[in-house]
Amino acid sequence: MKMKAVLILSGGVDSTTLLYKMLADGYEVTALTFNYAQRHKKEIECASRIAGLLNVPHQVVDLSGIAGLLGDSALLGKKEVPRCHYTEDAARQTVVPNRNMIMLSIAAGFAEAQEVPEVFYAAHRNDSTIYPDCRPEFVEALRPAIRMGTAWHPVELKAPFLDLSKAEIVKLGLGLGVPYELTWSCYRGEAQPCLECPTCIERMEAFTLNNAIDPLLGR
Amino acid sequence: MKMKAVLILSGGVDSTTLLYKMLADGYEVTALTFNYAQRHKKEIECASRIAGLLNVPHQVVDLSGIAGLLGDSALLGKKEVPRCHYTEDAARQTVVPNRNMIMLSIAAGFAEAQEVPEVFYAAHRNDSTIYPDCRPEFVEALRPAIRMGTAWHPVELKAPFLDLSKAEIVKLGLGLGVPYELTWSCYRGEAQPCLECPTCIERMEAFTLNNAIDPLLGR
Repeated sequence: MKMKAVLILSGGVDSTTLLYKMLADGYEVTALTFNYAQRHKKEIECASRIAGLLNVPHQVVDLSGIAGLLGDSALLGKKEVPRCHYTEDAARQTVVPNRNMIMLSIAAGFAEAQEVPEVFYAAHRNDSTIYPDCRPEFVEALRPAIRMGTAWHPVELKAPFLDLSKAEIVKLGLGLGVPYELTWSCYRGEAQPCLECPTCIERMEAFTLNNAIDPLLGR
Repeated sequence: MKMKAVLILSGGVDSTTLLYKMLADGYEVTALTFNYAQRHKKEIECASRIAGLLNVPHQVVDLSGIAGLLGDSALLGKKEVPRCHYTEDAARQTVVPNRNMIMLSIAAGFAEAQEVPEVFYAAHRNDSTIYPDCRPEFVEALRPAIRMGTAWHPVELKAPFLDLSKAEIVKLGLGLGVPYELTWSCYRGEAQPCLECPTCIERMEAFTLNNAIDPLLGR
């Protein structure tokens, strides 16, 4: 019998690669995508398209009602998206406070309700130097809290990319045939990637380090 | 300068008493109330009325969009509210999976965005025998996760009623002059408390143990 799991799928490079990896590993995946009123809503459409392509059950969770509570992040369209590589300051401009714990706690409740034993998210090594809620110590702390909060059908938190760089994730995904042209990263969320914001720059680097061309840019 | 804190205010006995206690202790409180499509929406109006009475800033957080993800709890109107004291089975009928972690993670994000250093909730000793996400070990596990997830402006989780029974909370509240006639507990959320559901029974017991009359029933 297949192992069941819930995956937080943003529609970006990392979580899409994780979805392909989980399917290759034999998981039966349900994907959740969060609408938190992010500026780059395009990623939600990307997630839907990818899930549809793979026949993966997919739900978009509407959290747009909480965006007003979460401060003035550039990701919520309240200030300009920085035009630079990830720096401490750029990270602070783009952080949505406690976003990952919010998404993971809802994913864990959803998993418990369906008696699905695992929740995955694609935090990785680059993220962990940037955002507090992507760090290994955060994952290690949250794991027992989720297990205890869902005690009747305990849910285990998995973050298998914690030790991988984004370039290593892209390497894995290229091997798995991930259609990166269907993914979206750019924080601006306009017609084409801006190639100036932190996540665009990081994405370009990850492909360059693999001597590969990002198929999203070739279109 | 007053200490600032965010409180999860349901509009029931416990969190209302905690609000009075925090104000008595000199806290500057912002209250958050969650609409998770609970059957007993009356509690939300109660929370608003109480916050208004005390001039406490108050926001109602709309999570009604996630109710469909969280299973078939009686609290979400998907099955009958049990007519009995809290039993293992009654607790399972009324649990909303991981509800408290979901609310606390949003409250922590909100607190971090405003650089408020503490988030309070009113889990107590009776709850802890019933719901996993009210237990001391859950609070102990979640505390460091919240601290790490909000690392730029660390938020501390406080649950000062963990060791108190509901009767002890009512005792404290009667001393503080809490207007319990403005609070709501009944899971049915009809015109009058049903006096048959687990939370009605628990509430009656708490007043009886204090030789007090619940002013909500005297109206």
